[in-house]
Amino acid sequence: MLYFICDYTEGAHPKLLEKLCAENLTSLPGYGADASCEAAKEKIRAACHREDLQIAFLVGGTQTNLVVISSLLRRYEAVVAARTGHVNAHEAGAIEYTGHKVIELESVDGKLPPAALSAYLKDFYADASHEHMPFPGMVYISHPTEYGTLYTKAELRALSRICRDYRIPLYLDGARLGYGLMAYDTDVTLDDIVDCCDVFYIGGTKVGALCGEALVFTRRNMPEHFLTLIKQQGALLAKGRLLGMQFDALFTDGLYWDISRHAIDMAMELKAALLEKGYTLYIDSPTNQQFVLLDDEQLERLRRDVAFDFWEKPDDSHTVVRFATSWATRPEDVQALKALL
Amino acid sequence: MLYFICDYTEGAHPKLLEKLCAENLTSLPGYGADASCEAAKEKIRAACHREDLQIAFLVGGTQTNLVVISSLLRRYEAVVAARTGHVNAHEAGAIEYTGHKVIELESVDGKLPPAALSAYLKDFYADASHEHMPFPGMVYISHPTEYGTLYTKAELRALSRICRDYRIPLYLDGARLGYGLMAYDTDVTLDDIVDCCDVFYIGGTKVGALCGEALVFTRRNMPEHFLTLIKQQGALLAKGRLLGMQFDALFTDGLYWDISRHAIDMAMELKAALLEKGYTLYIDSPTNQQFVLLDDEQLERLRRDVAFDFWEKPDDSHTVVRFATSWATRPEDVQALKALL
Amino acid sequence: MLYFICDYTEGAHPKLLEKLCAENLTSLPGYGADASCEAAKEKIRAACHREDLQIAFLVGGTQTNLVVISSLLRRYEAVVAARTGHVNAHEAGAIEYTGHKVIELESVDGKLPPAALSAYLKDFYADASHEHMPFPGMVYISHPTEYGTLYTKAELRALSRICRDYRIPLYLDGARLGYGLMAYDTDVTLDDIVDCCDVFYIGGTKVGALCGEALVFTRRNMPEHFLTLIKQQGALLAKGRLLGMQFDALFTDGLYWDISRHAIDMAMELKAALLEKGYTLYIDSPTNQQFVLLDDEQLERLRRDVAFDFWEKPDDSHTVVRFATSWATRPEDVQALKALL
Amino acid sequence: MLYFICDYTEGAHPKLLEKLCAENLTSLPGYGADASCEAAKEKIRAACHREDLQIAFLVGGTQTNLVVISSLLRRYEAVVAARTGHVNAHEAGAIEYTGHKVIELESVDGKLPPAALSAYLKDFYADASHEHMPFPGMVYISHPTEYGTLYTKAELRALSRICRDYRIPLYLDGARLGYGLMAYDTDVTLDDIVDCCDVFYIGGTKVGALCGEALVFTRRNMPEHFLTLIKQQGALLAKGRLLGMQFDALFTDGLYWDISRHAIDMAMELKAALLEKGYTLYIDSPTNQQFVLLDDEQLERLRRDVAFDFWEKPDDSHTVVRFATSWATRPEDVQALKALL
Repeated sequence: MLYFICDYTEGAHPKLLEKLCAENLTSLPGYGADASCEAAKEKIRAACHREDLQIAFLVGGTQTNLVVISSLLRRYEAVVAARTGHVNAHEAGAIEYTGHKVIELESVDGKLPPAALSAYLKDFYADASHEHMPFPGMVYISHPTEYGTLYTKAELRALSRICRDYRIPLYLDGARLGYGLMAYDTDVTLDDIVDCCDVFYIGGTKVGALCGEALVFTRRNMPEHFLTLIKQQGALLAKGRLLGMQFDALFTDGLYWDISRHAIDMAMELKAALLEKGYTLYIDSPTNQQFVLLDDEQLERLRRDVAFDFWEKPDDSHTVVRFATSWATRPEDVQALKALL
Repeated sequence: MLYFICDYTEGAHPKLLEKLCAENLTSLPGYGADASCEAAKEKIRAACHREDLQIAFLVGGTQTNLVVISSLLRRYEAVVAARTGHVNAHEAGAIEYTGHKVIELESVDGKLPPAALSAYLKDFYADASHEHMPFPGMVYISHPTEYGTLYTKAELRALSRICRDYRIPLYLDGARLGYGLMAYDTDVTLDDIVDCCDVFYIGGTKVGALCGEALVFTRRNMPEHFLTLIKQQGALLAKGRLLGMQFDALFTDGLYWDISRHAIDMAMELKAALLEKGYTLYIDSPTNQQFVLLDDEQLERLRRDVAFDFWEKPDDSHTVVRFATSWATRPEDVQALKALL
Repeated sequence: MLYFICDYTEGAHPKLLEKLCAENLTSLPGYGADASCEAAKEKIRAACHREDLQIAFLVGGTQTNLVVISSLLRRYEAVVAARTGHVNAHEAGAIEYTGHKVIELESVDGKLPPAALSAYLKDFYADASHEHMPFPGMVYISHPTEYGTLYTKAELRALSRICRDYRIPLYLDGARLGYGLMAYDTDVTLDDIVDCCDVFYIGGTKVGALCGEALVFTRRNMPEHFLTLIKQQGALLAKGRLLGMQFDALFTDGLYWDISRHAIDMAMELKAALLEKGYTLYIDSPTNQQFVLLDDEQLERLRRDVAFDFWEKPDDSHTVVRFATSWATRPEDVQALKALL
Repeated sequence: MLYFICDYTEGAHPKLLEKLCAENLTSLPGYGADASCEAAKEKIRAACHREDLQIAFLVGGTQTNLVVISSLLRRYEAVVAARTGHVNAHEAGAIEYTGHKVIELESVDGKLPPAALSAYLKDFYADASHEHMPFPGMVYISHPTEYGTLYTKAELRALSRICRDYRIPLYLDGARLGYGLMAYDTDVTLDDIVDCCDVFYIGGTKVGALCGEALVFTRRNMPEHFLTLIKQQGALLAKGRLLGMQFDALFTDGLYWDISRHAIDMAMELKAALLEKGYTLYIDSPTNQQFVLLDDEQLERLRRDVAFDFWEKPDDSHTVVRFATSWATRPEDVQALKALL
């Protein structure tokens, strides 16, 4: 079976395991206070060209989202997201469980259009009864989005400007950030992310780590007593080394970018093959997730040998499926898949 | 100034105050265990033609919504509502504050279309990843809706059937229930509400009471230890008599229906005058709220003498406003308003 | 039957009902924005000799406690209270339901000893692992306490000083504040409460009102968007007039103090009679609640004609009961009870 | 420096890392649905001699506690614990953050006395006003306790019987379960734990794993849609293999028990040396945590070469400290520490 079902089917990049094994029996303090966490933070700050970034490591994506959102929002505030945003659609109500509404706006190709955001904010404050509604207290975007698409630099800047005008933070979910920044034609760099966002995370789970996300606060805006807040939500890892060492390895010698670029290379090769063979792409994705519209014959034929993800069923005889590549995708598997198309 | 701004600008129908005054110094047990609460419940059961109804009194509408929804939902469940539903749009995130998502579906004239509900439910369970999403655990509708519109009996039955098919309760917010049931052309009776809904409330605050809503469970489905749940949310009134006596008076000799019908008579007289004078109705409402599209000249002229509610601004030179009648609307005020149109 | 079971068995002082009836059909804006609320606030400010107090009206005591505590605490903070404090013992977990721990300290005669508070706070910050514990973010006391006892001015000042040293607010639950301030030998005045506390409430439900508590912020520390926070917890009354008019009447011509003093007169007459007849007081209460230790014979005899509250059972043949007087207690009922002792 | 500061200063037992490395590039499904999780569960069931156990893996201890407690309690219920219980004292209010009170009872040597539990439960239901209090819905104990002490089989059975009488589940926090079951003189076996508890967890983080706890439901009482509940609290690991493979290795060939026994051997050797040299033990612990009362001279001398944990300061010239051994403690370090005593 060829595995293209998602980007978290393998363990960790071997260099991360090597690091964990090499220092395994060194005695280190717990809860993220060890040297490996500090080293990883320094390397991330260097990659971002900003020495003043505040960084914390968390275990998973939904966890990171709920910790950030519930820590930054005041009690009367809600987070604004595109309808298809992960926090709105696929986190089992985790944000609402922390007491905050997700205000859903329209989604265009998985993205939150700046115009939709500014229209919503303008209308909110124009409404005389807005004290009876949850206040917009943060904007959530994902990059790449849940559909593999990317914001342009102009779009990011527009969102950022709107957020600053209304004095609310812009939060970017970077579960697949490496795959976004290593896309061929994107004009967005990591520096742009740092500039435009008040807080964002660099995804590890889907980009080479066993687990772990690096949460970055860009305006010295890490909430007071953040360790206590993390602990209160069950998200504080006793052996912080597990996250520190992995991110240390990921940000040594550009490993994070190299393995991200590999996934993009694999995805673009697959995409080209799909187009060449006449397949219909459901959405034009420049990243590691490719959404393809299959008819029933194609579906039946491919599923015999390939594991992919079912996305939705637009009509009775067609299915949208997702092929995902990752840091671990083997070139020979892409060749084998191409042969089957 | 003529007051048509909303349906809660006056105190209580005089018969309710008479009742409160007459028994004011009688010593009664607290927390709703007194005879007036029992008498009120009996009268509501009689009005509903069902002796087995479980009833509790709460103080206000948002409070009732959050108590019901958070008491009936399991932790992994969300409530489904039309986008314009009060719980989604105008309760300051009260439902989410209890930890539950409001899943918003489309709204047609303020109503949740049965087809939209069944499509959503079908898609939810067809999605292989639905364990990663909040489960639909209840359906919320309001009747009349926030736009003054009414479900037909066929629509109510369709919603009820869908809910039973999926074994989730149907909850009807009846903040203005009297005004809905006393509308001229509705085919929905109180018996239909009891039949179709698992739980609903009969609004008092907007229909003649100082405060108070009568919450009715129709399937012997009042949650265990409901008093404790109410207390936990700060919603337990020490002097339950305040609610019991008011609902006792409201359901004596059909007072609730008579005063509701009065509001409808006033609203329909106003609606007829609006149409006759060429005003454009924003929505065709058969109840006590009338939504009218005014141009700037009309708006400026009317606001000098009339208090009404601003609803929204569809374009730069027009405004949608709401005129609300109530049990307390004086016929001479309607005449005066008609003269100004 | 003679009713001494609690202080909320009757309706409202007649002057409150007169006020409600007199202005019943006046059209007023909702949600506490009406003139009666403003008038009541002005009268309370005058009674407190402070023009800068921020005031809000809420419906009941548990509701007020949960609104205040959850609005003032940050997410990582807890409220500190005596073990017997109402928020810890008798509110169905309402505070915890808002996500905050109640840190219980020892209780001496229902009071939180200043020494216990300062020892706890010192130990907390001395503990190297305190980042793994909820932070003390507020101190809660009740005055009178749940056992009818009163803090002295020196105790109040000591608690206040400790709170300021640690920069955490002191919150006083005044559900029975009138009965506390009108006690014969107390050296605490309303001005002292205002001086010592960051926030407190003046209880209406137990002191002459149908419902209602007046919440007072003394340091211009009302939380931002407090109306929205109140709404979010289902505690916003549409017809704010119900609270405004009652507090307006209570603070007109010293009515609140007169009726409170009446309850104290009745309680002290009863207390004297109890002592004279050789009954054992369970606690020495100077306020409207009297706790008496009864043997089985006394219990059986008295319960035939008197409604009182069972408090606890210290051993198999004795019971602690509570007799409560109130603004509504009739002198002839006290005489009748004395005759039965 | 000799490290005895806690039992989570090293990585993982090498056999766990070997397992992770060996299968690192195997493609496996996510969210705990992979073969390694199933294999680990089977081995745990075998160790417990019960084929019907329901098992889930979570990342850390506080996380496991909050997931279990908030999933099993109904909204009006609280968890009962000893005052020193981890959920009450050291989890940053994590349980309360889920909306539930921790009802604290007395603690004797870190244990919840069965008599205290049954007295509390009897009093609760005897109190006529208990509907105004949070209901006891679960009992939490830790074994070993936070003070290293152990329940006897008789105590465990007594607690279990009380819980069954009141129909509330008994939950055992086994963060250090291996160290408890491998203590020299305990009469409690894993089978007893399974028999007496409705749910418990087998700690991995402190017993040889990088992270991970194995949660065991013994009465087929795993909550419905538990995966969704876990996800909602941000506790669902995408790469469940990280937990499955580690527990698979821990429960292969009795590794979990062997490494636990090693920690006990090390601790008992240290304890004997402490006693021999005249040190005062603060508490008589049979497990891997040893609490010692040091005078200032001893403290100053030892801290130069040994890392240990400060526990509390009973008076100005003495300090209670904790020495912890673990699976990773080297015999030569114990020898070195003994030489320093």
